[in-house]
Amino acid sequence: MLDFRSIDSLIELALAEDIGTGDITTEATVSTTQNGIGVIIVEDDGVIAGLPVVERVFQKIDPSLEFRKFASDSDRVKKMTPIAEVKGRVKPILTGERTALNFLQRLSGIATMTAQFVELAEKYDVQITDTRKSTAGWRVVQKYAVYTGGGKNHRFGLFDGILIKDNHIIAAGSVAKAVKKAKLKAPHTMKIEVEVETPDQVEEALSEGADILLLDNMSVELMRTTVKNVAGRALIEASGNITIDKVDAVAATGVDLISVGALTHSAIPLDMSLDLTLN
Amino acid sequence: MLDFRSIDSLIELALAEDIGTGDITTEATVSTTQNGIGVIIVEDDGVIAGLPVVERVFQKIDPSLEFRKFASDSDRVKKMTPIAEVKGRVKPILTGERTALNFLQRLSGIATMTAQFVELAEKYDVQITDTRKSTAGWRVVQKYAVYTGGGKNHRFGLFDGILIKDNHIIAAGSVAKAVKKAKLKAPHTMKIEVEVETPDQVEEALSEGADILLLDNMSVELMRTTVKNVAGRALIEASGNITIDKVDAVAATGVDLISVGALTHSAIPLDMSLDLTLN
Amino acid sequence: MLDFRSIDSLIELALAEDIGTGDITTEATVSTTQNGIGVIIVEDDGVIAGLPVVERVFQKIDPSLEFRKFASDSDRVKKMTPIAEVKGRVKPILTGERTALNFLQRLSGIATMTAQFVELAEKYDVQITDTRKSTAGWRVVQKYAVYTGGGKNHRFGLFDGILIKDNHIIAAGSVAKAVKKAKLKAPHTMKIEVEVETPDQVEEALSEGADILLLDNMSVELMRTTVKNVAGRALIEASGNITIDKVDAVAATGVDLISVGALTHSAIPLDMSLDLTLN
Amino acid sequence: MLDFRSIDSLIELALAEDIGTGDITTEATVSTTQNGIGVIIVEDDGVIAGLPVVERVFQKIDPSLEFRKFASDSDRVKKMTPIAEVKGRVKPILTGERTALNFLQRLSGIATMTAQFVELAEKYDVQITDTRKSTAGWRVVQKYAVYTGGGKNHRFGLFDGILIKDNHIIAAGSVAKAVKKAKLKAPHTMKIEVEVETPDQVEEALSEGADILLLDNMSVELMRTTVKNVAGRALIEASGNITIDKVDAVAATGVDLISVGALTHSAIPLDMSLDLTLN
Amino acid sequence: MLDFRSIDSLIELALAEDIGTGDITTEATVSTTQNGIGVIIVEDDGVIAGLPVVERVFQKIDPSLEFRKFASDSDRVKKMTPIAEVKGRVKPILTGERTALNFLQRLSGIATMTAQFVELAEKYDVQITDTRKSTAGWRVVQKYAVYTGGGKNHRFGLFDGILIKDNHIIAAGSVAKAVKKAKLKAPHTMKIEVEVETPDQVEEALSEGADILLLDNMSVELMRTTVKNVAGRALIEASGNITIDKVDAVAATGVDLISVGALTHSAIPLDMSLDLTLN
Amino acid sequence: MLDFRSIDSLIELALAEDIGTGDITTEATVSTTQNGIGVIIVEDDGVIAGLPVVERVFQKIDPSLEFRKFASDSDRVKKMTPIAEVKGRVKPILTGERTALNFLQRLSGIATMTAQFVELAEKYDVQITDTRKSTAGWRVVQKYAVYTGGGKNHRFGLFDGILIKDNHIIAAGSVAKAVKKAKLKAPHTMKIEVEVETPDQVEEALSEGADILLLDNMSVELMRTTVKNVAGRALIEASGNITIDKVDAVAATGVDLISVGALTHSAIPLDMSLDLTLN
Repeated sequence: MLDFRSIDSLIELALAEDIGTGDITTEATVSTTQNGIGVIIVEDDGVIAGLPVVERVFQKIDPSLEFRKFASDSDRVKKMTPIAEVKGRVKPILTGERTALNFLQRLSGIATMTAQFVELAEKYDVQITDTRKSTAGWRVVQKYAVYTGGGKNHRFGLFDGILIKDNHIIAAGSVAKAVKKAKLKAPHTMKIEVEVETPDQVEEALSEGADILLLDNMSVELMRTTVKNVAGRALIEASGNITIDKVDAVAATGVDLISVGALTHSAIPLDMSLDLTLN
Repeated sequence: MLDFRSIDSLIELALAEDIGTGDITTEATVSTTQNGIGVIIVEDDGVIAGLPVVERVFQKIDPSLEFRKFASDSDRVKKMTPIAEVKGRVKPILTGERTALNFLQRLSGIATMTAQFVELAEKYDVQITDTRKSTAGWRVVQKYAVYTGGGKNHRFGLFDGILIKDNHIIAAGSVAKAVKKAKLKAPHTMKIEVEVETPDQVEEALSEGADILLLDNMSVELMRTTVKNVAGRALIEASGNITIDKVDAVAATGVDLISVGALTHSAIPLDMSLDLTLN
Repeated sequence: MLDFRSIDSLIELALAEDIGTGDITTEATVSTTQNGIGVIIVEDDGVIAGLPVVERVFQKIDPSLEFRKFASDSDRVKKMTPIAEVKGRVKPILTGERTALNFLQRLSGIATMTAQFVELAEKYDVQITDTRKSTAGWRVVQKYAVYTGGGKNHRFGLFDGILIKDNHIIAAGSVAKAVKKAKLKAPHTMKIEVEVETPDQVEEALSEGADILLLDNMSVELMRTTVKNVAGRALIEASGNITIDKVDAVAATGVDLISVGALTHSAIPLDMSLDLTLN
Repeated sequence: MLDFRSIDSLIELALAEDIGTGDITTEATVSTTQNGIGVIIVEDDGVIAGLPVVERVFQKIDPSLEFRKFASDSDRVKKMTPIAEVKGRVKPILTGERTALNFLQRLSGIATMTAQFVELAEKYDVQITDTRKSTAGWRVVQKYAVYTGGGKNHRFGLFDGILIKDNHIIAAGSVAKAVKKAKLKAPHTMKIEVEVETPDQVEEALSEGADILLLDNMSVELMRTTVKNVAGRALIEASGNITIDKVDAVAATGVDLISVGALTHSAIPLDMSLDLTLN
Repeated sequence: MLDFRSIDSLIELALAEDIGTGDITTEATVSTTQNGIGVIIVEDDGVIAGLPVVERVFQKIDPSLEFRKFASDSDRVKKMTPIAEVKGRVKPILTGERTALNFLQRLSGIATMTAQFVELAEKYDVQITDTRKSTAGWRVVQKYAVYTGGGKNHRFGLFDGILIKDNHIIAAGSVAKAVKKAKLKAPHTMKIEVEVETPDQVEEALSEGADILLLDNMSVELMRTTVKNVAGRALIEASGNITIDKVDAVAATGVDLISVGALTHSAIPLDMSLDLTLN
Repeated sequence: MLDFRSIDSLIELALAEDIGTGDITTEATVSTTQNGIGVIIVEDDGVIAGLPVVERVFQKIDPSLEFRKFASDSDRVKKMTPIAEVKGRVKPILTGERTALNFLQRLSGIATMTAQFVELAEKYDVQITDTRKSTAGWRVVQKYAVYTGGGKNHRFGLFDGILIKDNHIIAAGSVAKAVKKAKLKAPHTMKIEVEVETPDQVEEALSEGADILLLDNMSVELMRTTVKNVAGRALIEASGNITIDKVDAVAATGVDLISVGALTHSAIPLDMSLDLTLN
């Protein structure tokens, strides 16, 4: 699912900005012939995401390094678990250490946060999905981390899904006008999703044939009534600063999906380290 | 200070991954001739960083858009302050909205967090500095945001500064051996910084002529004694999960710099929105 | 609608492969100070597409050249009509002539062919759409030419629309299994289109909730019955070597769309020339 | 003869524009572990060109796919002949199918058309050559297809051969002036070719020492007299909408080469399909 | 003649490798608002080449800098002559100084050396030409510098001229076989040049119809006899470590061209400096 | 030490500009199946640098070629020594010959010149170092060649070392002001180097805490006094047209380093050839 062609340029960007004209500390202090093993230890409970990226980072720095995994992406691991090792010349291991951990910690942080949301929502058969609030350059890998944590990916970007938001509605004149225009002009292969904030907008959207409603910043009560009123005429997605504290209540309203911006903009990296042993 | 040549490729990456083959929603729902103004509102107190990036984002999408700032990078602003507006055709404003906000919110989040650390440290004349725990592709802009928030930038990467860390010491055999090797082989234009954890390592480092000591995960008491013992023979940098709660105590020990990984790996984006008016 | 960022790299590719290290004939035979006007003449009846590309080609070769259009994209013109002129130094006009005409002739050929299909289909309120049988590197411009000729664009590629074809059905086991899987796993924002060849497959597809049926290589009679049986439960697209001779009969069956591979793989360039006058 | 370095970027362009962020249909409907064989069948008589490109396309999508050829480029094959197979995981086979066929069908179409011209011309010992009327990005592969069909390649572009055309003559003042300038300034390693339309221009060109004459849109009778008058003093190339119906008569005039724009601008793709079997 | 599209990537390469993440000395020591003028002084007699490159370097660093030339490329200047100035903010002037001078000094060194050879050869009506012994990445600019110094450019590379050298002759079996093969297979637009070392090889080459002979490392006497024997049947180019001391004697033999590898591999940069005045 | 990622793009640039659309001479004269061995012979005494680049050049042209070294980089070799061979198909050997030799001869020329300076300086325990007077695109390989010849590399560019030069001093107002500013603003990990021309400037620099002094164009006598006066308070680097004739006298003054611009701007390529044998 994680295609290397799509992440190679991000890895190369990371290595280029960190290594530049050379790792002068390692060059000066470590012997070229020194061999060793670096073990990656997770220092907090969490869900792993990004091991294939780590493998690729070391492979790019030195194809002769051997990478071995003790866990797989989407595994839940406990604090102080060794999850992978990289073996071979010490120099490239140290040169790649920070870049590898930067990827693995951030992606595992996203997977871990996603899993926490999913755990609360899945008993209501509600799906957790991501948003476009991602980090420039990282959309592919962040969406992968959300998926790895059990989430469902929303549209990738502006080009592969229609989502009529508040500002589109202002520009078009009304929910009804915006949905009507979209029905007319959009590709025949795509559904029409529209952001609604009031019961009137819900009815406007449905009467023009919207396929999906995005309930933006609605109260839990209003969501519940809306679900009832829509009565299956459209898919319903809840959105708007839905924190881990609120997710159970929102999921209980009967919406189909909950989209969570924090998954990609505010997940805290999962703490990890690389422990070196010589051999 | 923020050179556009260095950020253009990141902006292009962001636009490419978000817009791809076209913004189909805006294309379908907004008239090509509709004009308007989008005002960027900060929805929380914070320090602004990234307005030049936002200007550049809109310029790249449509050079005819007019961008006007009401605040500047490094300004502290209050919740609900309008800080900039973009004026012109509505279509490109909506197409660029998310990408622009993604940059501005994240960079302002970093500047805001940095300013909080700086405020606590500066009364002790201690500088707050960043680390290499940055996001792939973002090092230039994240370092800029730290600087904008009042921090001092550490080395950019592995190529422009020497920092002997725990794993280099393991590979070299000891602090003394590592520093000696670095003195011998490193470029004559660079200082030698070394990570130390114990009083013995401090003495080893100093006796071999290290220029800077990185005190890693030391207790506040040990830092205080170390500062006293070093007595100006080297610069001292404190490091290791120094949270906002600990920074005052660490700064009070008399170290010269405190490096904080969280600035670039865990700052929460500053909340913002773009409000559209037609005209 | 034709975004220059998306075509600049194709134009640069064209100029690089044609000009390479320099246009030695023009360099040797034409004076640097010689000025002139090159008029582009259409030598056959047709629909124009690609004038913005031509303008961009000359702009890239020499920004001082003045380009003036006498017609616009999607205009129907008669044989021997001058449609544009480029004015300025003769050297860059001659260097860009072939590249500019290569683009304009091919795109106008596509628009012309599309318009012929559209003319026959539109009286039945049927839309003509393109396929993925495009030329590597040209998808953006070829889709633009189809649109310019009055056609509707199908999905751009594999990433922004679901179309289950014969080989997917073989791999999944049956139409029913393929549609069921797609419903389960596909993004919630996309419709499910599936290729069907028999009445049984039509029923399988509908019973699993397919949104669009692609009737592949069906006889006109079978299409007619299928339209009747489907009775609005799904959109219907006809496909499979539908030539200009067959399009009226196919359109008359009541299908919603007809996709025509020939638009992008077999349109003959519209004949044109560039006539030079000195001044 | 077909160097992969020169075609890799075209293949990558094709895959990028088609696959983009992922083949969602195949991802949703085909199991990752399903294996199979895709056989490429030619559905019309023709000459094959482009099998190495097809191999490269599948190799880039999945290096573990096995590609086996049953025919070679430049082979003439009969309708319904299987010419190659690709074996391995079904997913990458389906993802690459369209891109592979798009290349193979177009290049085989060119080779097939070239072979038809060559067959008629070779009995007069006349060579068929291509022009610069190629498709942007495709010049290398189109010239390869012409060569594969038995044609001789003309200059690659503006940089590696001198060809003084009508507009150069207008700019220089006359055929004589243009040829004289070219003799003076052109690289000493290149011959001078010039387009001529009348007997007077032929004499002008020869008297200034032109090495090659391009007879543009001359009647067959005028070509015949010209060949006689030139009497070996220069190579002679015939040009100007020379269709398959006219080529025998033109070749019989005794010219040395006939250049045919249609080979690269109007060849119809050779019909093919990929038949999948599971295993 | 010097096309910026062809040199921009070289300039960007130069700036990237020199400036990298920023000019820290200038950043730290020079005020952002300080203005000044930098005057480029030639410190030795020579021929100027590369002023347009210098202008472009400064333009890329800061488009607001004003560049003014006091001399033009191909001008002969005396020691201590100011040849150009750049005016504006001091910071970008200092950041670009070294890169600008590196280009200008090297290219002027080549033009100066070329002019010395040309001066000696032109009285015999012999042309001085360059070779493929250029510096990777610099072929366009080095050929431009040779041309600026009065030389004639040989083929650009392996793709735009035929030159059969000693190793090709070994591979083909003999001069005769190599020339015959080239006549048969080479593009009809190119002449055949062949390296010959003995009178026998000269006759072999001529009897097979070679257009140009490259006399490699022949003694002056043998060259003279060869010129006499060839008697206009082919162009003659002399080659092989022809130093400035030998060029008069070689030119006097009657050869048509002399190619000199040293022009691009051993020219010494012309000494220059940039003198700064504040204002 | 020579990282291929950093040189691959330079090699590709070299091959692209030389080979372009194909090596037409080799294509026409050499059989595809002909095998042979090309032996690289050094034709003058010198120090070898660049064999890994040569290996990479041939590998890129044809991965099936076998490359064998008889010497290693930094070896001193005598005239007429065979140092490497490349074995396999003759075609790619001839296509790569010139590019390979262009790299090897230039880099070996630099290593040879560096070794001559080092030999004279090392008896005084003085290090020879390079400057930024390198060739655009070649900084990595030229610094490698200096290192291979026994030199010590100075800062790579403007980003990884501070060197306050004459124009910075003019802009800052004085040596003292410039050094003070640098101390304040520069990264805490870097030393401050400053160019000084007079005893007063030396004192200014030292009193502000400069770490390294660059003595620019000082007389040997003044250097000697300066070394005495500085008395170990700073490292001392001598600079300014220090030719091979002057290096002994300069080294004898007691400076720590001597930087030599000529190493990268005026080294003459070491003469070499590639002798082909068929097999």
